[in-house]
Amino acid sequence: MDTVHKLSGYLKEVGMDTRVIGIPKTIDNDLRITDHTPGFGSAAKYVATTMQEIIRDSSVYSIPSVTIVEVMGRHAGWLTASSAVLHAMGEPASYLVYVPEANFSERRFLRDVEQEMAKYKAVVVAVSKGIAVPEGVQSGLIDQFGHKYLSGIGKYLKQMARSQFGCKVRSIELNVMQRCSSHLCSKTDIDESEQIGMAGVRCAMQGVTGRVMVFRQIHDKPYTVVMEPADAALIANREKFLPGDFLTPAGNNISENALAYFLPLIQGELNLIMENGIPVHFRVQNIILP
Amino acid sequence: MDTVHKLSGYLKEVGMDTRVIGIPKTIDNDLRITDHTPGFGSAAKYVATTMQEIIRDSSVYSIPSVTIVEVMGRHAGWLTASSAVLHAMGEPASYLVYVPEANFSERRFLRDVEQEMAKYKAVVVAVSKGIAVPEGVQSGLIDQFGHKYLSGIGKYLKQMARSQFGCKVRSIELNVMQRCSSHLCSKTDIDESEQIGMAGVRCAMQGVTGRVMVFRQIHDKPYTVVMEPADAALIANREKFLPGDFLTPAGNNISENALAYFLPLIQGELNLIMENGIPVHFRVQNIILP
Repeated sequence: MDTVHKLSGYLKEVGMDTRVIGIPKTIDNDLRITDHTPGFGSAAKYVATTMQEIIRDSSVYSIPSVTIVEVMGRHAGWLTASSAVLHAMGEPASYLVYVPEANFSERRFLRDVEQEMAKYKAVVVAVSKGIAVPEGVQSGLIDQFGHKYLSGIGKYLKQMARSQFGCKVRSIELNVMQRCSSHLCSKTDIDESEQIGMAGVRCAMQGVTGRVMVFRQIHDKPYTVVMEPADAALIANREKFLPGDFLTPAGNNISENALAYFLPLIQGELNLIMENGIPVHFRVQNIILP
Repeated sequence: MDTVHKLSGYLKEVGMDTRVIGIPKTIDNDLRITDHTPGFGSAAKYVATTMQEIIRDSSVYSIPSVTIVEVMGRHAGWLTASSAVLHAMGEPASYLVYVPEANFSERRFLRDVEQEMAKYKAVVVAVSKGIAVPEGVQSGLIDQFGHKYLSGIGKYLKQMARSQFGCKVRSIELNVMQRCSSHLCSKTDIDESEQIGMAGVRCAMQGVTGRVMVFRQIHDKPYTVVMEPADAALIANREKFLPGDFLTPAGNNISENALAYFLPLIQGELNLIMENGIPVHFRVQNIILP
């Protein structure tokens, strides 16, 4: 988005009438000004769906267990917070959610898990990749090839919980699947992504340059957004964090307040084209250029 | 399945007319006598779909990369081999597949990857959890809590490839998602699972006991299976491995011969009931008992 600003400035300077419009996209949803970003709704749908499935998977065992699910998000917990959707499903199982916006304390984490284990056989914990842990602990390992072994926060908390509780503890990384599972897209996200691209082209045709397209929600019921150009300088190099009231007071789950934000973004499914039992991917070589 | 044998024997001995029929289920598909096992088709559909998505994800970068995908399977490579479906899709990207049935050599693995890297920017490698690596190497790490750190084969090969090639190397564990992603089931698998359960009940009603229900394929085009009882003793405590001709001569991919086996098992999708943008899970408390 910074490049949009610089490039449009340069083109004006050298007298070229080429317009530059930025279309944001990130599953992280951490851009300011825009209500949300293309890509986020589909990733959020995947995370909420998968959290529900992991909770179900963990509930079939008769022995106590803790399952740590590591979700993308270095500084902002948007994706992890999409598990808030489980409130709407009346999910009866135990789960805890830790995002970078709440101060993370290992002591409180262990106490939270212990409290849940007193009530439930299986405890599932969703954590953002970027929740704070003491500097250095993650890189204390040297692998068999002499390199520092960088374990993620999920593995770190797994080892800690296993040490503390001595029960079955697993850690699961949603890894690239949370951004590439195109078989489970939000139709709302895909439709809006096409629309914001078209809106960007229309703006450029009308002479707009050096701006970034954003979503602005103008109505909540029914959910209605407009797409409009915004100042790239306001968006570039700054992050957007979860609002405080999206977190529970204890900071170990997402509040029901967050539901109204997340639900519209994950609605609808695409009709997948299946071949040989798996989805057909669109390939660039399929395009016939004029 | 061993329990079926023992329990039915005991019940006969004490003169109780209670019949015991085993219904196999395992996503590992490593049971003998039966053509395949309930659960496998859905997990195979997930693995093939996700491999295709990870290949697509890895192809968007301009820098060279290696991606290692770790799939379940300790002694048999059935799930990993389901990536054979990508042959039917004419997948143009580079991928390698290593299963426990082929002797694994680290030297050959590195040579294979190097050869692919000479031709392709991104190389994706699917490996079964149980391919052989030198004893002990995986447990050479001690974590910050004083415990042995057990890294999987994916992480091990990642560190090795990074050491050798110095490029971007990732490892991805499909973890429990390969068995619990109920949003992406094979309709064939779900239908057959219901049918084999019913067939088991019918057998018990007819007086059969101490046997295990199996699938036998009686026709290939169209794919047709019958369900019949088999001797539990033949199935218990023994594994079924990939046939030799399912592997390429080099032992680093699955051959097209495997396609005819895998394709029928992953056909069809369920109509999911969605609520709030995610699938509704069936709950036991919803059942009204008569």
